[in-house]
Amino acid sequence: MIIVMSPNSTPENLESVKQKIERSGLSYHQSVGENRTIIGVIGDKKKIGALEMNCFDGVEKTVRITEKYKLVSREFKADNTVIDVRGVKIGGESLVVMAGPCSVESREQLREAAEAVKSAGAQFLRGGAFKPRTSPYDFQGLGEEGLQLLREVGDEFDLRVVTEIVDLNDVDLVSKYADVLQVGARNMQNFRLLLAVGRCQKPVLLKRGLSATISEWLNAAEYVMSAGNDNVIFCERGIRTYETYTRNTLDLSAVVAIKELSHLPIIVDPSHGTGRWQMVQPMARAAVAAGADGLIIEVHPHPEVALSDGDQSLKPKNFASLMEELKGIASVMGRK
Amino acid sequence: MIIVMSPNSTPENLESVKQKIERSGLSYHQSVGENRTIIGVIGDKKKIGALEMNCFDGVEKTVRITEKYKLVSREFKADNTVIDVRGVKIGGESLVVMAGPCSVESREQLREAAEAVKSAGAQFLRGGAFKPRTSPYDFQGLGEEGLQLLREVGDEFDLRVVTEIVDLNDVDLVSKYADVLQVGARNMQNFRLLLAVGRCQKPVLLKRGLSATISEWLNAAEYVMSAGNDNVIFCERGIRTYETYTRNTLDLSAVVAIKELSHLPIIVDPSHGTGRWQMVQPMARAAVAAGADGLIIEVHPHPEVALSDGDQSLKPKNFASLMEELKGIASVMGRK
Amino acid sequence: MIIVMSPNSTPENLESVKQKIERSGLSYHQSVGENRTIIGVIGDKKKIGALEMNCFDGVEKTVRITEKYKLVSREFKADNTVIDVRGVKIGGESLVVMAGPCSVESREQLREAAEAVKSAGAQFLRGGAFKPRTSPYDFQGLGEEGLQLLREVGDEFDLRVVTEIVDLNDVDLVSKYADVLQVGARNMQNFRLLLAVGRCQKPVLLKRGLSATISEWLNAAEYVMSAGNDNVIFCERGIRTYETYTRNTLDLSAVVAIKELSHLPIIVDPSHGTGRWQMVQPMARAAVAAGADGLIIEVHPHPEVALSDGDQSLKPKNFASLMEELKGIASVMGRK
Amino acid sequence: MIIVMSPNSTPENLESVKQKIERSGLSYHQSVGENRTIIGVIGDKKKIGALEMNCFDGVEKTVRITEKYKLVSREFKADNTVIDVRGVKIGGESLVVMAGPCSVESREQLREAAEAVKSAGAQFLRGGAFKPRTSPYDFQGLGEEGLQLLREVGDEFDLRVVTEIVDLNDVDLVSKYADVLQVGARNMQNFRLLLAVGRCQKPVLLKRGLSATISEWLNAAEYVMSAGNDNVIFCERGIRTYETYTRNTLDLSAVVAIKELSHLPIIVDPSHGTGRWQMVQPMARAAVAAGADGLIIEVHPHPEVALSDGDQSLKPKNFASLMEELKGIASVMGRK
Repeated sequence: MIIVMSPNSTPENLESVKQKIERSGLSYHQSVGENRTIIGVIGDKKKIGALEMNCFDGVEKTVRITEKYKLVSREFKADNTVIDVRGVKIGGESLVVMAGPCSVESREQLREAAEAVKSAGAQFLRGGAFKPRTSPYDFQGLGEEGLQLLREVGDEFDLRVVTEIVDLNDVDLVSKYADVLQVGARNMQNFRLLLAVGRCQKPVLLKRGLSATISEWLNAAEYVMSAGNDNVIFCERGIRTYETYTRNTLDLSAVVAIKELSHLPIIVDPSHGTGRWQMVQPMARAAVAAGADGLIIEVHPHPEVALSDGDQSLKPKNFASLMEELKGIASVMGRK
Repeated sequence: MIIVMSPNSTPENLESVKQKIERSGLSYHQSVGENRTIIGVIGDKKKIGALEMNCFDGVEKTVRITEKYKLVSREFKADNTVIDVRGVKIGGESLVVMAGPCSVESREQLREAAEAVKSAGAQFLRGGAFKPRTSPYDFQGLGEEGLQLLREVGDEFDLRVVTEIVDLNDVDLVSKYADVLQVGARNMQNFRLLLAVGRCQKPVLLKRGLSATISEWLNAAEYVMSAGNDNVIFCERGIRTYETYTRNTLDLSAVVAIKELSHLPIIVDPSHGTGRWQMVQPMARAAVAAGADGLIIEVHPHPEVALSDGDQSLKPKNFASLMEELKGIASVMGRK
Repeated sequence: MIIVMSPNSTPENLESVKQKIERSGLSYHQSVGENRTIIGVIGDKKKIGALEMNCFDGVEKTVRITEKYKLVSREFKADNTVIDVRGVKIGGESLVVMAGPCSVESREQLREAAEAVKSAGAQFLRGGAFKPRTSPYDFQGLGEEGLQLLREVGDEFDLRVVTEIVDLNDVDLVSKYADVLQVGARNMQNFRLLLAVGRCQKPVLLKRGLSATISEWLNAAEYVMSAGNDNVIFCERGIRTYETYTRNTLDLSAVVAIKELSHLPIIVDPSHGTGRWQMVQPMARAAVAAGADGLIIEVHPHPEVALSDGDQSLKPKNFASLMEELKGIASVMGRK
Repeated sequence: MIIVMSPNSTPENLESVKQKIERSGLSYHQSVGENRTIIGVIGDKKKIGALEMNCFDGVEKTVRITEKYKLVSREFKADNTVIDVRGVKIGGESLVVMAGPCSVESREQLREAAEAVKSAGAQFLRGGAFKPRTSPYDFQGLGEEGLQLLREVGDEFDLRVVTEIVDLNDVDLVSKYADVLQVGARNMQNFRLLLAVGRCQKPVLLKRGLSATISEWLNAAEYVMSAGNDNVIFCERGIRTYETYTRNTLDLSAVVAIKELSHLPIIVDPSHGTGRWQMVQPMARAAVAAGADGLIIEVHPHPEVALSDGDQSLKPKNFASLMEELKGIASVMGRK
């Protein structure tokens, strides 16, 4: 931490700051500039992390130099983490595609989607059984029945299953049916839920919060890893900005940032990231070109009767065309 | 809902749209403009709420006219709701002030804060026993011990107690000690937690999410009310913007917006809203002048040793001076 | 400037960094922490301002400690600047109110507005003769005819005149008629225009850019002052955020920030800041309570026939009621 | 335009609204829903564009259905516009790359950059002679000397020249030397400058404003086209968001949006869009995969001595490697 003293701070102010640093078991370097004195705090990262110095008289501002997360960082582990989900590897050489409807609605709907998804080459079936909806009056999902359908249809088509968990009491329930537990954007800082999925053994797909910084997202993953679960997959799904033409602004530079800062894999959700089915195909291509390890895409056999997010779902035909296109980009990127 | 057809949509596209509307048990008005045909959907609000039409061929865009929330709206209940917390009324004639440390740290700290807060004229003691922190390595609160201290010290100084709940399994526990349950910004769309506090009888202080729209915030309150709890208090605490000089951007127009759209009371948190203790006093004044029903303010007897958020906590002396100033503003606003 | 070296930087990397600093006529302090070496650059502010170090191998990041602006800063001049506009003082004891229509449309409209504005107690008449509009097909203002009307009607009612300048070739023209030249939000970083108004003697009202940081805004004012014009008045007019209920998000903490960082006066525009006439009154009160030196408000005798911004204009009756209310708040703030 | 009447509006309110519409030379459709009456305004687009109805009593809100721009829209011209810059075509089959230093600093620097840029396969030399800088004390460019250097070095290496214009009085001057005039992000709504470049014959590269919506950007281009210049090239360069890890957030979905809404070409600037040279390569790939017609990239022979934006400039070696990679992506996209 760097502490910048105000030009009109007193020697007593400076003394109080130094005493506080020493009382916290830390040491410091002092640098006297033309207008300002600057104190660099040195020592244990956790102790520095707990330090708050802006409330001291004479302190103009403080700047944190190091991040608080550790286990998720590339500094801690230099090599990419590859997560094996019953034989399908995420973060390795192959591009991984998860696809399926926003919500599980019926066996027929799910089978039709799964068939399309499988035949186009995806490895995962996605679908929501518990839906976090803005309004309490919107369709909230089929619950356990939806989980059962996901498992059965996933097995029938040899697809891995990823689905969202919204309640920390449901870890055992969802783990029983799903291969990967998804933590949604609205729960990215539901820390109790993060700890709960951190204590189970299933891989966790951690969506970026609606307005989460890269740093907050990494810290959220640190919650999961600190509880014992090393298998975290990031998922960029668009952030909230002033632009209204798209539902969210898909931040593909986050893919590059996560690759710089962390060893964990990252996939991209162009369906929520844009909210417009017409944009899913070009943004999926762009995500792979930016270096994403995979994609999660909404595919619905009949978007016009979908109970949720029909606006951003691809029809099977468009999804197949997308998968075809991705082969070219993936090959340029040295992926299968 | 208004459906705007694209200039190059076909008669068949239009026909499909109309059929979907009718199949959904709704009717429509058609309006043919110079370049575009526009369909206005008429009928039951919930059915319209569930409609998704952008996935239909030939649809250029759709615009929602009515909001999905009902119980929280001023349309539903014209008069202001006044919430009675053991004799202290929120949303009525008097300004309500909740104050205390960010985290409960010890009996001494809490007693010192409570004494200052009470003597300056506040009615509520605030303090966190369960802290949602960005990093798993930051101080997470004293837990039940903190709740007990809050209750005991609150009673000693005749202050009502407000504290945050972060786990849906803790409703009974926190209700046992607190007068008002706070749902924090990061949990504003933790819908399971909203339903859980909605099923209990304690008033709920619902903080605005970091980047929640007014509409999403009202829908979050609708979750609580739809579960049976009518006593919801909004709390504006700053939103996330590009500006970095302040920790958040305190959006005081939200106070006016909530008063327009809802009958529920709203208070303001200038401590988190700015993240700088120097700004708390002027922004507290501004909040009251904008029409807020109250304030929640961080006061710490010794911010320089606080375990969290010392940077934005007022010292007792400054808090007393603020309370003095507020009297003048409150009186101009016709409040006590 | 603080330079943070990456944990895996080499001694050669560090050496290159040090050489660059020395070649730039600056010196440094080195601080070796547990994981990272940190270099604090010391010396002339302008030389440090020109330094870019992120492109050096081994540099993890850099942090700027001091701002580049000087003349506008409170560090440079501790006392508040009071700007005298033919006897009306901005930044002094009295609250200053500027009011009038968005656009000058006709003598009748302007006289009616001026009469209302004057009788309610405002000191300035505002009105646009050159309008910067999003679309080329929107009304662009009456041009010089509008300026003439402003001057004549202003003189008739003994009101000072403030109006926007959009073209750097118009400085003499607008100066001939107006008492204060307004630089609009869209031109806040039109640096040639800033230099042009900086070379004239009329006070400048500098609106905050749509998404300008406090720092960028201060630097824009520095352009004006560096060209020789000391009379700059800031105007907060709302920033762009994700919220759509209001046209902009009025950032009243900017008032406090500017007062902390600069000696120049600041006023607030609640009309553009909210875009809703219903919100102008409460947000005007809040602005004054936050410490603003004045207000600029759209008042139109007949908003329903206005050629621009009718949606956010007050009727004379509402404006009079607002001015009445402000007296109470101003008095609490120690202002007349 | 859709006008939503409030549930408690009176018949007189409705009547006033209708009269205003008719007085404006427009007609309407009325649709009576369960809770609200909705008025759809029909008629001439420009007249509707000028209508402001929120100030009428009883109006809850209004929604605009059509955009004000026309000439730039794909509705107006269905086929892609291809702009020919002395034989180099922008918006056609080939990917166009513009590259060079942020600022022109000297003949040596520019020649070295041009040589690298040309040999790697770029068609344009970029470089700033007039630099819009946040602080008046930063390097402002070499002025006309810089323009001369650009022209001479461009001709020497058979590269087209693109450079920024910041002053509306400089149109002739800059046109004399440059092949394409760039309007920078900070001037995107400097409407006088847009009209000035609209009156000249050189193609215009229109950068997206720091927080411009897609709609505002299209309207800015409409200013240029409405003044007679059909040759506008959009340039996405990142928008301002809350994220601080990158300098801006590169919004690649804007590429898709512009392609949907307009016939004009669009290129991407990953250098400013990310502010980090390490991210330029992956984001350039992503831009092409999203469908961009070209790229503009900062290349400096020695970023560590650059007078501006060294932090985001590529070294020639990295640029050559990027150009090599792009071939694969371009080929998948059906481009040369």
